[in-house]
Amino acid sequence: MAMSMMPELPADRTPGAQLTVGIDVGGTKTACVVTDAQDQVLLHEVQPTEATRLPEQLAMMIRHAVDEVAVSGGTVTAVGVAVPGQVEPRSGAFALAVNLGGAAAVLGPQLAQRVGLPCFVEHDAASAAEWFRLANGGGDRNNLAYVSVGTGISAGIVLDGEIFRGHNGLAGEIGHVTAEPEGPLCTCGLHGCLEATCAGPAIARMARDAVARGRKSALDQRASAADVFHAAARGDPLAREIVSVVSGHLARAIRGLLFTLGVQHVVIGGGVAAAGEDLLSPLLAAINGERAASALAEAAFAQTTIELLSPDVEAGARGVAAIARERVGADQREGVGKR
Amino acid sequence: MAMSMMPELPADRTPGAQLTVGIDVGGTKTACVVTDAQDQVLLHEVQPTEATRLPEQLAMMIRHAVDEVAVSGGTVTAVGVAVPGQVEPRSGAFALAVNLGGAAAVLGPQLAQRVGLPCFVEHDAASAAEWFRLANGGGDRNNLAYVSVGTGISAGIVLDGEIFRGHNGLAGEIGHVTAEPEGPLCTCGLHGCLEATCAGPAIARMARDAVARGRKSALDQRASAADVFHAAARGDPLAREIVSVVSGHLARAIRGLLFTLGVQHVVIGGGVAAAGEDLLSPLLAAINGERAASALAEAAFAQTTIELLSPDVEAGARGVAAIARERVGADQREGVGKR
Repeated sequence: MAMSMMPELPADRTPGAQLTVGIDVGGTKTACVVTDAQDQVLLHEVQPTEATRLPEQLAMMIRHAVDEVAVSGGTVTAVGVAVPGQVEPRSGAFALAVNLGGAAAVLGPQLAQRVGLPCFVEHDAASAAEWFRLANGGGDRNNLAYVSVGTGISAGIVLDGEIFRGHNGLAGEIGHVTAEPEGPLCTCGLHGCLEATCAGPAIARMARDAVARGRKSALDQRASAADVFHAAARGDPLAREIVSVVSGHLARAIRGLLFTLGVQHVVIGGGVAAAGEDLLSPLLAAINGERAASALAEAAFAQTTIELLSPDVEAGARGVAAIARERVGADQREGVGKR
Repeated sequence: MAMSMMPELPADRTPGAQLTVGIDVGGTKTACVVTDAQDQVLLHEVQPTEATRLPEQLAMMIRHAVDEVAVSGGTVTAVGVAVPGQVEPRSGAFALAVNLGGAAAVLGPQLAQRVGLPCFVEHDAASAAEWFRLANGGGDRNNLAYVSVGTGISAGIVLDGEIFRGHNGLAGEIGHVTAEPEGPLCTCGLHGCLEATCAGPAIARMARDAVARGRKSALDQRASAADVFHAAARGDPLAREIVSVVSGHLARAIRGLLFTLGVQHVVIGGGVAAAGEDLLSPLLAAINGERAASALAEAAFAQTTIELLSPDVEAGARGVAAIARERVGADQREGVGKR
């Protein structure tokens, strides 16, 4: 089990500073940060996700982070955990996490009991969207979608400065909107979902399947999504075809967000966003093609910023740390009010 | 120029009652109603839309409606006009109405000057969504999408009891979300839009194209969308194939709304909804197929009601009449407050 420790920033720690732990549970990796009230990252750790023993793994990561910052006099006051699937922030429960083997748990209370700290649970992409809102000035006029493209795909939505969940708690699960009606089977059981055509595993699978069918390429049967973007940047024809398919689907998905939610900012994060310009250039080319073809698309896109956010930023973990800080503060104020 | 007059309800008119005119401008037909504060329809008129002389046509319809109800002592206090495209309710302007030949106008002030009454402009599907909200109890917890399927396709969205427009004013323009990446050219300039695969003209075109290619069918080269649904109900194989394609696209579009907006109610209206059970049955069959295949789809659909609303209800015209009543009241209260 590989573990990487990456303390990021110089330890500018006020003794006794009120810190929060933020954890982002991904389908492949789980990231843990400790941040202060200024969103400075004091500790950053990444582990492969162990979906079958998630509460145990998360409790260990939290205890370790708490101990690490205590050495320098930092005190952790709350924990935020960002998870995929259908999340109920009030109860701390999540369900239907198809990329965690369909995992479901009342995670908040379970973790609170294990680590002795208030633990808040939030949707992973919503956490990252909240991080972007705060980084973007924190205004209540923010309307944005943070589209996470990693092992899975989902969007965190902020409307008028508030995380938007929808009546069914599934608003933003755009990974399961159809990209290709007759497309490949998705982890969720449906066919042709955006996630089944554009998420990291889908990109890798397209490359491997083509190579297995005898297609000549610099890619081989162990190709990852990152390999595909690198090879495309070096001109490999198969890789360029795959990137073209993926960026076309993502461009249409973004258009879908603009023609459904009418958001002002679209931010693409998650593991696949590590491709950087190799993803952004063909994506913008696809979008510019739509703008040139349609006055309606032009109107929608002209009012919208589209950008990539490197997964190294750890927007989800930092966002949920900020959410935990805000909620433990609100709970304390409410507790004071009750007395 | 055909004109049909269809007074609907018995004339239970209080002398001097405060009435509003509501007009729904469609790509094919324009409906005009007069309603009272209880949403009773006192007058109902339908004309073919004359997109090239829209202000003139609407002013004539309004004047005629005002004169008609005046005979029985009714007084019209405001006018609401529901239009497709990008709408700015404050200025009374609309633009980008692809099914009105790309029409754009500052319609509210133009009409107000012509008819001497306050004229409010609202999005057509949003007006119908507002009508459904009011008919559904008017609560502020309503989260719904009214999907209009007629000459074009768009959704009126109500979130937490309020019409939702998005930052770009294009929220709900789901007719231009992709249904088939390589599908037919849409009026908007893009390919494979939902509107280009499922709206009334697209359904008719699929039938006509197949017949022109020599396909045996009860349908002929003058087939309308309504004819396709009738023929499908009678077992015509081509018509059944087309209805299956259309209901599949609509089912995926509804799934897209549920996985983006997470709404509680989906209402399908517009001219194509006149097909009634002939549309609803295959649509629900397609949705039930998705529910059976996917726990995630089951979770999304189980929390949502899906229903058809007959175009005879005139939800758009009645909704915009109610909106005009509310806004003229708010303007008067505001005016009083200023004095």
